[in-house]
Amino acid sequence: MAKLPEEEHPEKAFGWAARDSNGVLSPFKFSRRSSGPKDVNIKILYCGVCHSDLHFVKNEWGMSIYPIVPGHEIVGIVTEVGSMVQKFRVGNAVGVGCMVGGCDECEDCKRGWESYCPKTILTYSNIYHDGTVTYGGYSDRIVVEEHYVVRFPDGLPKDAGAPLLCAGITVYSPMRYYGLAEPGTHLGVVGLGGLGHLAVKFAKAFGAKVTVISTSPSKEKEAIEHLGADAFLVSRNAEQMKAAARTMDGILDTVSAKHYLLPLMELLKSHGKLVLVGAPEEPLELPAFPLLVGRKLVGGSATGGMQETQEMLDFAAKHNITADIEIIPMNYINTAMERLAKADVKYRFVIDVANTLSA
Amino acid sequence: MAKLPEEEHPEKAFGWAARDSNGVLSPFKFSRRSSGPKDVNIKILYCGVCHSDLHFVKNEWGMSIYPIVPGHEIVGIVTEVGSMVQKFRVGNAVGVGCMVGGCDECEDCKRGWESYCPKTILTYSNIYHDGTVTYGGYSDRIVVEEHYVVRFPDGLPKDAGAPLLCAGITVYSPMRYYGLAEPGTHLGVVGLGGLGHLAVKFAKAFGAKVTVISTSPSKEKEAIEHLGADAFLVSRNAEQMKAAARTMDGILDTVSAKHYLLPLMELLKSHGKLVLVGAPEEPLELPAFPLLVGRKLVGGSATGGMQETQEMLDFAAKHNITADIEIIPMNYINTAMERLAKADVKYRFVIDVANTLSA
Repeated sequence: MAKLPEEEHPEKAFGWAARDSNGVLSPFKFSRRSSGPKDVNIKILYCGVCHSDLHFVKNEWGMSIYPIVPGHEIVGIVTEVGSMVQKFRVGNAVGVGCMVGGCDECEDCKRGWESYCPKTILTYSNIYHDGTVTYGGYSDRIVVEEHYVVRFPDGLPKDAGAPLLCAGITVYSPMRYYGLAEPGTHLGVVGLGGLGHLAVKFAKAFGAKVTVISTSPSKEKEAIEHLGADAFLVSRNAEQMKAAARTMDGILDTVSAKHYLLPLMELLKSHGKLVLVGAPEEPLELPAFPLLVGRKLVGGSATGGMQETQEMLDFAAKHNITADIEIIPMNYINTAMERLAKADVKYRFVIDVANTLSA
Repeated sequence: MAKLPEEEHPEKAFGWAARDSNGVLSPFKFSRRSSGPKDVNIKILYCGVCHSDLHFVKNEWGMSIYPIVPGHEIVGIVTEVGSMVQKFRVGNAVGVGCMVGGCDECEDCKRGWESYCPKTILTYSNIYHDGTVTYGGYSDRIVVEEHYVVRFPDGLPKDAGAPLLCAGITVYSPMRYYGLAEPGTHLGVVGLGGLGHLAVKFAKAFGAKVTVISTSPSKEKEAIEHLGADAFLVSRNAEQMKAAARTMDGILDTVSAKHYLLPLMELLKSHGKLVLVGAPEEPLELPAFPLLVGRKLVGGSATGGMQETQEMLDFAAKHNITADIEIIPMNYINTAMERLAKADVKYRFVIDVANTLSA
């Protein structure tokens, strides 16, 4: 018989978990492995609440393993290091993002693209090398192999910096990979949520001209005055969209609901790139002709590799980029999830784990 | 009143034209402009019959201007050059492809990507700088500005080389642009027609491993034994497709009929590229999830620039790449069009213009 989560490993741990697809989270006792030679043991301070957490607790992607302790935007302090650990010492501030393991041997792992390794091990609700289920950052501590831990830069706030570990790298990585991080690039950002607001900040720091594209005219002031976007387009305003046709080098599309790609493709110059980082469940409609005549492309992207995540954090620290957050106690999480489902947050919930999680 | 095509310009010309969307071609008297200082006057020897010609004569893309003299895979001999022409002399073998003009000022023109210039002037059924309609290569001669003429290499057969001017560059350019022309690349080629059979030849010359993907098992022998492909996949054979999952760096998709992209995307490794060079009229279904989790992309491409067309011809000459052709007399064109519509040609009709077109 499989062991109970509480008895599976030698080290006691505590967090909040969803037990089934109703998605309600509640206190949960489980266990963590003892640190191996390459492991870093981390006391968790803050954990961001990502939209994926919501998909996972409700099993909307059909891959959840219950009970689930979500959370993959983790900032904490090193409490113990294995004998072979080289990068970290006790007391270091560190971050853990979407993955805690991979094969370390495939083409993707070797190129530093660990998030695309077919055997990548997600931070929670996945099976680890030892056959046990992974549990995420809505918990007091976590043990992670050094390679999948990043240094959290001095000067970067640990609470507002936490969402960079997933939302931040998810927008930073495609801008770099698709060549949209050059000064002078005109970048469109579709959707102004957790991902979108960080996309605007990173793009501005790269020296881009940024146009936010949204269905809600009400977001214009926020986009321009607060986030620093250069322009704002209401996607339902045909005149505005027409006037902006063929002006953009790239578009980062953060929207997860099904939507039309053609109006976005028309905003692109020839050789422009439409990059999806939101994942609608239904297939999108892709008109081929505009793709051909403008040699445009539609690409996807999902988080980023470990080295790139470190680069992103260092870049964020240098340019004072953090998420706009609402800090919450652990026991507010179910309300937070409900509000997140309605996009009622500016722009990211972050759980104050260390101060509000008690066994 | 607008002048008749025969009286529009000072120089008499003769070809075959479609008069309306029934698409039937018949003898047609028109005229060509006198050579300007930058113009090259060309006696046409051969002209390939491209699938676009069929679309155009039947107005299937809704942009035809009748009467239409089709033909944009033109090989001929220079008979006259303007005073400022630098690259060509009387007697040179030359080629003309899909375009005969552009703005020469936009970002695309400056980067040598003239085929993406928003003001690109197509070789036929388009409006030239002087306001007159352009007429293509199903005719005795053509006058083209030097910049849009390429040198036709010695040693490249003028008949079997003609289709390189459109079909050739249409497959060569995306392989280069999307980084799929490196030795060791595993490239899938979907569809084995005019474009597909040239894609196999160019990819092999680049040093790629080539897998042809087709709905017809009957094409396997042809693909491997005759064209030199390394492997063959029947797209309807789920087992074969599954066994080939995640093995390809890129796929060049030459199919113009609506089809599913997901099975093709599953053949790609992470970071793989699916490039469409056929243009289905209806939108395709694009599943977003596989695009994200593998950071894959779907791109388009349409012919190529002038410098790249010259490079492609030189490369073809060096590697003995020509199209497999069926040479036809001018008065066979209507039968050829009917056969083309049924894909009943291996793989390209080429009109022997000089020997079979008579006024």
